[in-house]
Amino acid sequence: MGRSSLPTVRVSLKGAKTLRRGSPWVYRTELVELPGTQDKGAVVSVVDPQGNPVGQAFYAQHSPLALRLLTRKGPAEEKVDEAFLRHRLELALARRAPLKNRDGLRLVHGEADLLPGLFVDRYGAGLSLQTLSEGMDARKEWVARTLAELTGATHVVCRDDASGRDFEGLPREVRLLHGEGEARFSYHEGENLFEVNLLGDMKTGAFLDQVDNHLRAGQLARGAALDLFSYHGGFALALSRSCDSVVAVEQDAGAAARARENVARNGRTNVTVENANAFDVLRRYSESSQRFDTVVVDPPGLAKRREGLATALRAYHELNLRALKCLRPEGLLVTCSCSGKLGREDFEEMVLSAAADAKRPVQILERRGAGLDHPVLGGLTETEYLKVLILRVL
Amino acid sequence: MGRSSLPTVRVSLKGAKTLRRGSPWVYRTELVELPGTQDKGAVVSVVDPQGNPVGQAFYAQHSPLALRLLTRKGPAEEKVDEAFLRHRLELALARRAPLKNRDGLRLVHGEADLLPGLFVDRYGAGLSLQTLSEGMDARKEWVARTLAELTGATHVVCRDDASGRDFEGLPREVRLLHGEGEARFSYHEGENLFEVNLLGDMKTGAFLDQVDNHLRAGQLARGAALDLFSYHGGFALALSRSCDSVVAVEQDAGAAARARENVARNGRTNVTVENANAFDVLRRYSESSQRFDTVVVDPPGLAKRREGLATALRAYHELNLRALKCLRPEGLLVTCSCSGKLGREDFEEMVLSAAADAKRPVQILERRGAGLDHPVLGGLTETEYLKVLILRVL
Repeated sequence: MGRSSLPTVRVSLKGAKTLRRGSPWVYRTELVELPGTQDKGAVVSVVDPQGNPVGQAFYAQHSPLALRLLTRKGPAEEKVDEAFLRHRLELALARRAPLKNRDGLRLVHGEADLLPGLFVDRYGAGLSLQTLSEGMDARKEWVARTLAELTGATHVVCRDDASGRDFEGLPREVRLLHGEGEARFSYHEGENLFEVNLLGDMKTGAFLDQVDNHLRAGQLARGAALDLFSYHGGFALALSRSCDSVVAVEQDAGAAARARENVARNGRTNVTVENANAFDVLRRYSESSQRFDTVVVDPPGLAKRREGLATALRAYHELNLRALKCLRPEGLLVTCSCSGKLGREDFEEMVLSAAADAKRPVQILERRGAGLDHPVLGGLTETEYLKVLILRVL
Repeated sequence: MGRSSLPTVRVSLKGAKTLRRGSPWVYRTELVELPGTQDKGAVVSVVDPQGNPVGQAFYAQHSPLALRLLTRKGPAEEKVDEAFLRHRLELALARRAPLKNRDGLRLVHGEADLLPGLFVDRYGAGLSLQTLSEGMDARKEWVARTLAELTGATHVVCRDDASGRDFEGLPREVRLLHGEGEARFSYHEGENLFEVNLLGDMKTGAFLDQVDNHLRAGQLARGAALDLFSYHGGFALALSRSCDSVVAVEQDAGAAARARENVARNGRTNVTVENANAFDVLRRYSESSQRFDTVVVDPPGLAKRREGLATALRAYHELNLRALKCLRPEGLLVTCSCSGKLGREDFEEMVLSAAADAKRPVQILERRGAGLDHPVLGGLTETEYLKVLILRVL
């Protein structure tokens, strides 16, 4: 494709300003002139109202998020082709060098790795790939082949079954892009071994954004521990290495069964997995006299939309209040929220208000987020979601 | 002292509410009835306007911060005596158990350890003690003896020369409270050995709140590094373990000399200490073509008072902008602020705005604060001050 053939999109002054201040996104409402192309996921040249180049972007035919910037250079300065994208993939892999001892980690984190809408997780020799942009969706077969070559992965699974696909106007699908047969892999979190079925499990496998937080909780925890919303046991198994006993609570029967398998796989004899509702369990404990030295609260996103925020905040508050009441003096609370709609400050205010209501003075020991392999792009902090507070109850 | 003899302070409804919501502080303006006592640092019983008990507190004769809560129990339920304070000290030491491999750390962190106005750092067998409340100031000889007994320290130095003492109406002084002769001690940050002179150095010795951040920067950094505002070399020596070369810049001649000694002590041959002004050095580099793979910006508190915040923000912005411009692609910026008056959100906005001005996309890798041994009390988050952002420039 010749440079002169690149379709052009003209954006409003506001759109151009947004891009120039560091955001890579332009909504459809800020497009002044559409490109002629009907190509799915086409690369376009972006210009401001005066026709000055702003960069090159993926253009989406359907998504409200019409442009996702790929480079701030115009088509005359830089060609966006397979070599360009391959270099971006190589850079993303190189950034994970400090995590070279891990066999379970995110390799590509979308816009933050300047690969808009592409998310790739590694579990041993298996890769789980998600595309949340038309541009990456159109190129996923190529991405899968290229990543298999760069990483030596035997399987690449497309896990395009997240709700974010609907927003982009993309169909949901789960299938193998590379490799054959089943896609079961194992990976480590510290000393613990986990197994995932990339074609079968919920989500893209595990919650790799929490791995460092699992390990950190394991370092700090002690005594009798309660792990709420356990999923397949990431926190519970880390806690089992430093705590006397762990009660892991998971409502989903399939996830609870996998947690039990992971407990057995690692020969942990001090973990009990309960297939139950965390709210019910907390109510039961807070009415009994049983107390814990460590409680982990890691619920699924309770605030999915901005409208439901007040309701979600009440649920978070209830959870944290009851968790705090279940703690012995000097006990540790590890409390998380993965709701993008709930800001860091509001989350913290909610937890501290629960502490005040529980009449328990608390020390804030650490504020954490997703691990190094899930960076946040400056200028697009709205893509941040995971917040973790580690408190000690005095 | 008999229970009936405890002087009583009546606070306003607002004051009582503040205490009941978790803050341990009441300003003099909220006192409705003063205690009869003239005793320096007396313990008083605190009651609300209706005479209901709120707890017991240190009463200060001079400080605007008249009451610092010690317990939420009244004198009939709990006696605040030496046994009470000794137990609080023991709990503070027990909380540092996860840091038992460190020989340089904060042992007592004031209100967050429910020991209002008492700050104690350990450097090997030496303790550095600060009191920032009349109550603790009046008891410091006893505290020094008790801590020497509990920790086996050979020396306890009173470093009551901080400006915070003026606010409390307390005289400044530096002297030995326990032990004899000089008070030179060494401690480790990871593999690196540092020496401090507890009677002679600036501050209470080192910046122990940054130790974990020094080590983390060392884990992530690589290539050619620039460390600005080096003090005695905490960041520089950590960087020297993973980087090819480190230029450490420190304006204070005494601190620069100590940094050189610490470099030599650890046999590091890849660190150059420059006794110069960081702004000047940055200007020089940004005008030359020399670029770095890692830059650390750890200035002294530039915003000491709220009035100077705008000026301080401009200085922080200038520093960060120039630091970003000195970085090669994929380079690491570790940027800090220890100004309590500058909030976490404003600090982050300033750094991201510098990145936008530098036209460099950045990944936010980690947000950090002071280490575990410097916890923040929930309900008194205004005592928090240290903010660290680790960014990768793309």
